[in-house]
Amino acid sequence: MSTEEKSIGGYSFEEYVEIVKTFHGSSAPGVILGGVMVEEAKRHLPEGKLFDAICETRVCLPDAVQLLTPCTIGNGWLYIEDFGRFAITLYDKETGEGIRVHLDVDKLPQAPEIEAWFMKKKKKGEQNLDKILKEIKEKGEKLLSVSRVHVRPDRYRRLKTGPVAICPQCKEAYPARDGVICRACSSQ
Amino acid sequence: MSTEEKSIGGYSFEEYVEIVKTFHGSSAPGVILGGVMVEEAKRHLPEGKLFDAICETRVCLPDAVQLLTPCTIGNGWLYIEDFGRFAITLYDKETGEGIRVHLDVDKLPQAPEIEAWFMKKKKKGEQNLDKILKEIKEKGEKLLSVSRVHVRPDRYRRLKTGPVAICPQCKEAYPARDGVICRACSSQ
Repeated sequence: MSTEEKSIGGYSFEEYVEIVKTFHGSSAPGVILGGVMVEEAKRHLPEGKLFDAICETRVCLPDAVQLLTPCTIGNGWLYIEDFGRFAITLYDKETGEGIRVHLDVDKLPQAPEIEAWFMKKKKKGEQNLDKILKEIKEKGEKLLSVSRVHVRPDRYRRLKTGPVAICPQCKEAYPARDGVICRACSSQ
Repeated sequence: MSTEEKSIGGYSFEEYVEIVKTFHGSSAPGVILGGVMVEEAKRHLPEGKLFDAICETRVCLPDAVQLLTPCTIGNGWLYIEDFGRFAITLYDKETGEGIRVHLDVDKLPQAPEIEAWFMKKKKKGEQNLDKILKEIKEKGEKLLSVSRVHVRPDRYRRLKTGPVAICPQCKEAYPARDGVICRACSSQ
């Protein structure tokens, strides 16, 4: 894909950067590169299929998923399994078949500014955000590795809340399955 | 506040419902009521102060916070402490002084459709979404209770990633503080 054509979720690269600024509060490289990763994962999925998402870190990446897919934290289609790895998986919630995309450290030397940022070789004040974003725009896809994975959907499916009870201690509503008092009161 | 004037985060009530549909995938009552809760909390905070957010459930509410405040999962200013309680806290990240807003079950009988939905007295197919949203618009604030709370900011502050290492097993980058291999590999 040439630089001119690059688009992320139907936005131009520059539009996506602006959307990230508004939602995330800054044009953080992790959310911008995350957008390239989400696009790459989508390209490998059959079109029109409903998918769920897993992020293997809670830093930055979940916001790219939330901006570019139907999956959010609040609707339960995005699950964060915080391994501290910069990787996302989009998978068919029926079959568990999915695509995992991660930033491949072996490929990083071709993008020295991204490498310096991601591997913390430069302090924040020494990083050049414009250069990092330029490298993401020009070479983002080339730094990724893609693999087919099988996810056990039951592992990541959010439990239905089920019947609601009133906690005798705090007098607030909570999922009755949690026991005789709510988790907040029982953890005190 | 009269029904006509009702606005959420600078949007009209109806605009907010549309924004929720786009982001969350449906006009879920939890995200709409969550918007009223975020507004209520903001009204009690000093203007212009930077605040962090805590949601006491991962269902619906986090999306209201992400849409209406600078706090997202990916930027670390939103923390989910999943007690299963329908409550949010916005707090000054310097002092820990904050405002907690929760849906007060004692006040629910004045909004029978919301009560039937929230307390699961009606099955989903029997609920009337239009009536629920009308009650949220007309009476949302009246169903809430607000309290001043003190939060220990260090409890909710996200750790900096710190130095990055390459996991000898999966060959991916991970926070070096996690040990000799990454958490994904050590959990297998």
